[in-house]
Order: sequence, then C-alpha cells, then structure tokens
Amino acid sequence: MQLIDGKAVSSQIKQEIAAEVEQIVKNGGKVPHLAAILVGHDGGSETYVANKVKSCAECGFKSSLIRFEADVTEETLLAKVRELNDDADVDGFIVQLPLPKHISEQKVIETIDYRKDVDGFHPINVGRMSIGLPCYVSATPNGILELLKRYNIETSGKHCVVLGRSNIVGKPMASLMMQKAYPGDATVTVCHSRSKNIQEECLRADIIIAALGQPEFLKAEMVKEGAVVIDVGTTRVPSTVTKSGFKLTGDVKFDEVAPKCSFITPVPGGVGPMTIVSLMRNTLLAGKKAIYK
Amino acid sequence: MQLIDGKAVSSQIKQEIAAEVEQIVKNGGKVPHLAAILVGHDGGSETYVANKVKSCAECGFKSSLIRFEADVTEETLLAKVRELNDDADVDGFIVQLPLPKHISEQKVIETIDYRKDVDGFHPINVGRMSIGLPCYVSATPNGILELLKRYNIETSGKHCVVLGRSNIVGKPMASLMMQKAYPGDATVTVCHSRSKNIQEECLRADIIIAALGQPEFLKAEMVKEGAVVIDVGTTRVPSTVTKSGFKLTGDVKFDEVAPKCSFITPVPGGVGPMTIVSLMRNTLLAGKKAIYK
Repeated sequence: MQLIDGKAVSSQIKQEIAAEVEQIVKNGGKVPHLAAILVGHDGGSETYVANKVKSCAECGFKSSLIRFEADVTEETLLAKVRELNDDADVDGFIVQLPLPKHISEQKVIETIDYRKDVDGFHPINVGRMSIGLPCYVSATPNGILELLKRYNIETSGKHCVVLGRSNIVGKPMASLMMQKAYPGDATVTVCHSRSKNIQEECLRADIIIAALGQPEFLKAEMVKEGAVVIDVGTTRVPSTVTKSGFKLTGDVKFDEVAPKCSFITPVPGGVGPMTIVSLMRNTLLAGKKAIYK
Repeated sequence: MQLIDGKAVSSQIKQEIAAEVEQIVKNGGKVPHLAAILVGHDGGSETYVANKVKSCAECGFKSSLIRFEADVTEETLLAKVRELNDDADVDGFIVQLPLPKHISEQKVIETIDYRKDVDGFHPINVGRMSIGLPCYVSATPNGILELLKRYNIETSGKHCVVLGRSNIVGKPMASLMMQKAYPGDATVTVCHSRSKNIQEECLRADIIIAALGQPEFLKAEMVKEGAVVIDVGTTRVPSTVTKSGFKLTGDVKFDEVAPKCSFITPVPGGVGPMTIVSLMRNTLLAGKKAIYK
C-alpha cells in the first residue's frame, strides 16, 4: 500500500509555480493576482480563505481579500463582482461559498466573468469541461487528477466508481474520468443516495473516489484488493482528542481500508491540500491568459 | 416486451405543441420561429433539415431555412449567426452539423447566443444541464428522457449503462440520468471504446442506452432479462432490399435482444423521431421565453 501524500505534492507544486512566477517577472511579465471575496465570519470559510491568501504568498502571487459583513445585500456583492470583472489587474477571483441565505449563489457565480472564474463554477467552464475544451477545472477534481498523474496511476480502461453526485466534486469527477485523456479513459460509475448495492459497485472498482460527505462510509468489505482509493470527505466530527474539539474525518474508514489498497489518500493530508493548490494553478493559468485571452 | 413507439409519441407531442401554439396565437402571442442554417448539400443533412422544416409546419411554427454553399467562409457564416442572434423575430436557430472542414464547428456553436441555442450545444447550456439548472437540453438525450417519461419507466435507483461518451449523446445522457429528478436518480455507468468487460457491465444494467454508432453491437447475451433498451444508433448500412440502397441500423441486434426486454426502441421509429420533436419542444420554450428572458 502506498500513501498518496497530498501535502508533499501540493508543496512541490507551489514551489514549481513560484519558480515559474519568478521567471515570468524576470521576463517583465505581470505577477498573477488572485482576489477573494469573503462574506461573513464562518469559521470554515475564514480558514479556507486565510489558507488561500497564504498559498498565494508562497506562489509569489499578489492576493487581495475583500470582506463583507453577513448582512451585505446581493446587489452590493454583485456590484463588487462586476468591479473585479472589469479590473484589469485582477487575473482571477473567487467568492468563498457558502453565502448567506438571502444571496443567490448561482446568480453570483454566473455574474463572475468566466475568464476570471478560477473556481471553475461558472456554467461555461462546467460545460467546456464536459465537452473536453480548455477551461478552469474546479479545484477538487483538478487536484485529484493531479494526484493520479503524479503517482502514475493507470486509469485507461479501469473501472472508476465515484461516490456522490455533487456539482463541485462528483459530477465533474465523473466527467473528467471518462474523457479521452490521461487521467481519464476510465469506465465510470456514479453512485449516490438513491443507488442500491453500493457495496457491490465498489467491490468491482479499480479506483474509488469517495465524495459523499459521510464519515467512514467506505469500509474494508466494500473495497477489492489492490484498489486505488481517493477520499474527498472532510466532515468535522466532534473529538475529545484534538484541541479544536473536532477532527476532520474522511468518507473512508482508513485503518481497515488502507491495507487492501494499492494507493490511498489520507484525511487530512490527501485531497485537501491539493484543492488549494489547484486554485493556485488556475490562477497561474489566468495570469498567463493560457485558457482565455 | 413492449415496443417504445417513438413515431407515435413524437406525433402526439407535435399535436400537443400545435395546440399550445394555437392557444398562444389566440391570446395575441407570437408564433415561435425556428431558423436553420444549412451549409452544402450533404444528403443526410438535407434530409434532417427538410424534416425539421416540415415538423415546424406541423407544430404551427414559422421556420426559415438559410442556405450556404459548401465553400462559404467561416466569417460569412459567423456573420449570419450574429445576425440571427440579433433578429428579434427569430426565437431559436440551429446550424446543421457537420460543417465543412475549413469551418470550426466549436467556434460557430460558441457564437450562437445561448438563449437561442435550441440545439443545446453551447457550453452554457451543457454546463447548466450538468449543474441541474433550466436550459436547452440537446435533442437526442431530451427525446430519450421524454420516452422514458411517457412510458412511465422507473429510473430511480436503477442501474443505467450508457454505451458511448459523445458530447451530443453519451455524456449528456449520463449527466441527465444521474440528476436528482425523474427521469434520473439512476446509478449510471458510462462505457466506451476503452472499456473492458462491456458485456459484464451491460448484463448488470436495468436500462441500457446504446449510443456507440456500431451496428448491432448489443447482442442477446449482453442483456439481462427484463432490461429496458434504448437504441440511439442510426448507421447507414448498405442494403440490397431497400430502394435507397441502405438501411438505417441501430446499435442493438433487435431481433435477438427484443424478446429479453421489458421495453425496447426500434430503429427506425424509436429515438429518431423524438430527436426532431425535442428540437420543436425547445423552440416552443424559446418562443415562450420559458428558460431565458
């Protein structure tokens, strides 16, 4: 069993990006600039955004954090989005989700200029990904592809089971794994809350991508010998052991599943760190205008 | 075994649309207007477009056919697309594919205003479909959903195998069958040219949607007793029996597969007629501005 070390890979990618940025600047190019809009003070969102800002620094990017209180109106938020769309210095930006209930997330996402949508949530980017055109691929699926690549994991003709059909992980993951590409070219099965016989489906899988958000859902008896298991789950489960009072728990019962795997990602330290680094990769692409002019 | 009669369903839907258009006009509304651009004189395309124009008449729509010779420049074609985008009388339009090689189909598709893209090929419509937002769903998948609906075929929790991963059938079909909706909520497996054990996958399927374009690919020994089989294939196979010298042949070896099925679509007369009727349904939606304002 080989542990997929997302932390190590992400740290290496950040170094690669930083080296490229240095080169760009040396050649008189522009420092990539990521802006992030944060609404309210949700603990999780604060942490994510702080980590994104920190990662920008590590990559040599410029970053801007724009804060609004939780009672900001949708109109004010949309006006800021439009301002960032028009700001030539901003190469890409994100609006940290979730947003307060009085604001339509979909409206915000669709207001973002797709050419600056480094989160890859705009329908144009989602559609282009499905069609197989160059686009910003959303962070988590993008990070998983990169892990598969860096560990030279064979995917062509493999049976890949995706657990979950969310718009930000399950669906794009399925779409990417079936593309004519590497990683890709897999036979893909998507299971979800309505699926019967999930155990049977998983037992047939060469690659399992678990993104249900159900702590320790995937157990040893659901995994065949030699499978590759990618754990996307990050549920905060109360814990008496940690200082914070909770523990990030994946969708995989790691201790019993790991011995059966050829490759497995831990939680934390697997997919998580790759997510932010994917955003950094998209920001670099945006800075270079590599996807859209 | 029940035969799914796409011809009968499509004819009924056209009557329903015609009745609705009559009502719209009676209430002082606008007659929906579909425009079609046809480049060159490809036999298949000529037939398709002629059928679309004929269907428009049956539905009470206004239709316009715009023809270009095969040597039209991309710029001239794009200029016409932009003209139709701006033409307030045209509710929706299509550019019949395939296009001559010197013209980028993708560029043409992306130039069409997505609000008039009744073929549902624009990345925005593809992306919105994947996310589960209102959009123009492309004709063939849309037609298949409608058949499943009209025959009350249960899909929730069923195992659906999609054979083929094309952008116009396989991928959107998979995406739709996994949505939280009816038809949908199925466990979906997508197989393609790189898949191993397609027989094994198919044998486990409650619903098989065959869209590989390989005549008579699906044989009796690949289908379990009681399965629903939807045949999207329409390959022209040479024939000494027909006047035209060819015979439309599906992806399913109908004679041997049909006896095992609970439901099956024939070729011709199954999915085919539904495809054009889906375009009519999208045109009606466009006329009513039901999806986009």
